[in-house]
Amino acid sequence: MLEKQLQKYAQLAVRVGVNIQPGQTLFINAPLPSAPLVREIAKKAYEAGAKHVHVEWSDEEITYIKFKHAPEEALHEYPTWLAKGREEVAEKGGAFLSIYAPNPDLLKDIDPARVAAATKAASMALQHYRSRLMADHNCWSLIAVPTPAWAKKVFPNMDEDEAIAKLWDVIFQVTRVDQDDPIDAWKAHNEKLARIVDYLNNKQYKQLIYDGPGTNLTVALPDGHIWAGGAAKSTDGIVFNPNMPTEEVFTMPHKDGTNGVVRNTKPLNYGGNIIDGFTLTFKDGKVVDFTAEVGYDTLKHLLDTDEGARRLGEIALVPHRSPISQSNLVFYNTLFDENAASHLALGKAYPTNIEGGTNMRTEELLERGANDSLVHEDFMIGSHELNVDGITKDGVREPIMRNGEWAISI
Amino acid sequence: MLEKQLQKYAQLAVRVGVNIQPGQTLFINAPLPSAPLVREIAKKAYEAGAKHVHVEWSDEEITYIKFKHAPEEALHEYPTWLAKGREEVAEKGGAFLSIYAPNPDLLKDIDPARVAAATKAASMALQHYRSRLMADHNCWSLIAVPTPAWAKKVFPNMDEDEAIAKLWDVIFQVTRVDQDDPIDAWKAHNEKLARIVDYLNNKQYKQLIYDGPGTNLTVALPDGHIWAGGAAKSTDGIVFNPNMPTEEVFTMPHKDGTNGVVRNTKPLNYGGNIIDGFTLTFKDGKVVDFTAEVGYDTLKHLLDTDEGARRLGEIALVPHRSPISQSNLVFYNTLFDENAASHLALGKAYPTNIEGGTNMRTEELLERGANDSLVHEDFMIGSHELNVDGITKDGVREPIMRNGEWAISI
Ligand SMILES: [Zn+2]
Ligand SMILES: [Zn+2]
Ligand SMILES: [Zn+2]
Ligand SMILES: [Zn+2]
Repeated sequence: MLEKQLQKYAQLAVRVGVNIQPGQTLFINAPLPSAPLVREIAKKAYEAGAKHVHVEWSDEEITYIKFKHAPEEALHEYPTWLAKGREEVAEKGGAFLSIYAPNPDLLKDIDPARVAAATKAASMALQHYRSRLMADHNCWSLIAVPTPAWAKKVFPNMDEDEAIAKLWDVIFQVTRVDQDDPIDAWKAHNEKLARIVDYLNNKQYKQLIYDGPGTNLTVALPDGHIWAGGAAKSTDGIVFNPNMPTEEVFTMPHKDGTNGVVRNTKPLNYGGNIIDGFTLTFKDGKVVDFTAEVGYDTLKHLLDTDEGARRLGEIALVPHRSPISQSNLVFYNTLFDENAASHLALGKAYPTNIEGGTNMRTEELLERGANDSLVHEDFMIGSHELNVDGITKDGVREPIMRNGEWAISI
Repeated sequence: MLEKQLQKYAQLAVRVGVNIQPGQTLFINAPLPSAPLVREIAKKAYEAGAKHVHVEWSDEEITYIKFKHAPEEALHEYPTWLAKGREEVAEKGGAFLSIYAPNPDLLKDIDPARVAAATKAASMALQHYRSRLMADHNCWSLIAVPTPAWAKKVFPNMDEDEAIAKLWDVIFQVTRVDQDDPIDAWKAHNEKLARIVDYLNNKQYKQLIYDGPGTNLTVALPDGHIWAGGAAKSTDGIVFNPNMPTEEVFTMPHKDGTNGVVRNTKPLNYGGNIIDGFTLTFKDGKVVDFTAEVGYDTLKHLLDTDEGARRLGEIALVPHRSPISQSNLVFYNTLFDENAASHLALGKAYPTNIEGGTNMRTEELLERGANDSLVHEDFMIGSHELNVDGITKDGVREPIMRNGEWAISI
């Protein structure tokens, strides 16, 4: 049974996620426990005509051992050849599939300064590669698999096997693998998201206003901003799905135009550390004050990464009654939690979210209001108490969301 | 119990195998099932002062899927960046630990031409890296772990868990991990091998003569040949152990000086295919005729890799009563089988086996009689029926081995 579902999931990742084309290289980032799925994905990728399938395995225990025992200076370095490898594959038109299953508690006893150093070193080394992907120069996709640590975090009262089986059920449900024809179901889902995207793109609101418990925020949108959601199209014209599951529609804010305060509604798992119960106060786009009940140091290191880490790069709307949200679970996994709640992201904006952005240099993007940073970190602010309004160019205030649900007719 | 043994094994690999020095990078090649050992090795390596520990994982099922499904042209390519990565680590003085656990039957239904193409592509891409290691410019070591497929091949009548446990026992025994102080035991073992090495180096035989069932071979040794065995010393002066276990003493033959016929005594697992019951006929150093009861095509592809693949690059002597041999098992794993029997190797010679060799260019090495090739493949010819004689420079014939045992007094 699981084997058949795994095959359907693999097929979905290959055909709908990265949408492998004949002759392409598929580069897979995979944690060790995902091996059974990765093998199915490799088979399906070759079936779809892939030339090479390269798997870059990772082991969270080796990661932990590094953070625990490596000398300080090692954490400031990232292997050049490993970064160059991704760039080489990207420049030759490869596709990138990441299997995402972070352990929320992995680094809880590690000094956040050590984690921050390593995160920054990796971000710097991988900057060129990540920029290519964020501009959709390559097809890429993010999917999840249960790992023992993640499953136990989501279902703490179950034993390990039960928790893993239950988490598989949830994953298969929200990625539509449990439906007869998942590929068809994704087509319908992408069409639904496209209708919301079209509505918002036609409106070209100049501001959004967020109102909820602890949240009172005004966000300016740049001229020519583009809402996106569901399927994306690479610069070579290949349609792919960057996230599975996905329920969001998103655009870029103007990097200098956010004012007010926002409070998170779900814990954020930042590189193996939890940040929760936090508020950010913005003035002219920049975080000028912040608090956190959990993970204050980790949040501080995130905000101090660089100039752009204190500004927003993405605003995303997700109805509170999304399938993932209805599960009433906290996943401690951004791929899931961001698609269960409206969210914002600190850091780099997607160049695809502004007209002509994928052909602009960084300076031009900055001038147009697109934020730049080594980081891009989503955090969840949606709930059944969130209201969102749009301000049109004529100054008219219109409801977009009420009590966490769409207030627009599409 | 296993955990404690794993820790001792890890410590041995780090301290005696690659002998990690402070500030070094340790690069580990590891199959997925070796994860528990690799984690212990990473801990011990950081304890010993390693700066970075990088693990390059491999999965034999992914390898099989590639050979089964990838397009033909893909098999002729090896990722440049992956080869460059090893070179970068090597040039910066890194140490290399390979965990070796090949599945003898992995590729038995794959066309040998496909396997040969991929093997050659990898050898070409990794040529610079492998040359560095064969000249001991970096510390390197090869150790083994049981995998389900390998364990079942060695112990076909046991169930999987029992076979794995039994194979661990054998590994711990032959690597001396079962002794109270394995590091001390290796010191004593290396001293014993050094006495044989000294004896043979003092003799400077000009020829060896092999005599056994199906074997009648004369091998010329080049002037200034060096016998080696046990611990090696890197060009930076670090003592390390390239193979664990190791029971051999070895030197290089003159590439043009082998004549006669030789028959193998144990099956050879060449990249996932078995070659067995084979004979090679040499004339002036070159294989001019060959037969094989099993794996004829695989042997043909090996011999056809390049000019040097038809000539010998190593001759090694192992007493028949070596600890590994006494287990009376066939391991289908060259690391074990070569240390259970006298053997020869087709292909590249170790530059360390001739005076001044590690500073010579390929042309000079060839001139001195050292063979060069993309391959270096050991095959076993020892048994309780093998006799080996040496011919001194004065033409005196002296016994070296009788009935597979040392006939020299050391
Ligand atoms: Zn988002
Ligand atoms: Zn985002
Ligand atoms: Zn050997
Ligand atoms: Zn050898």
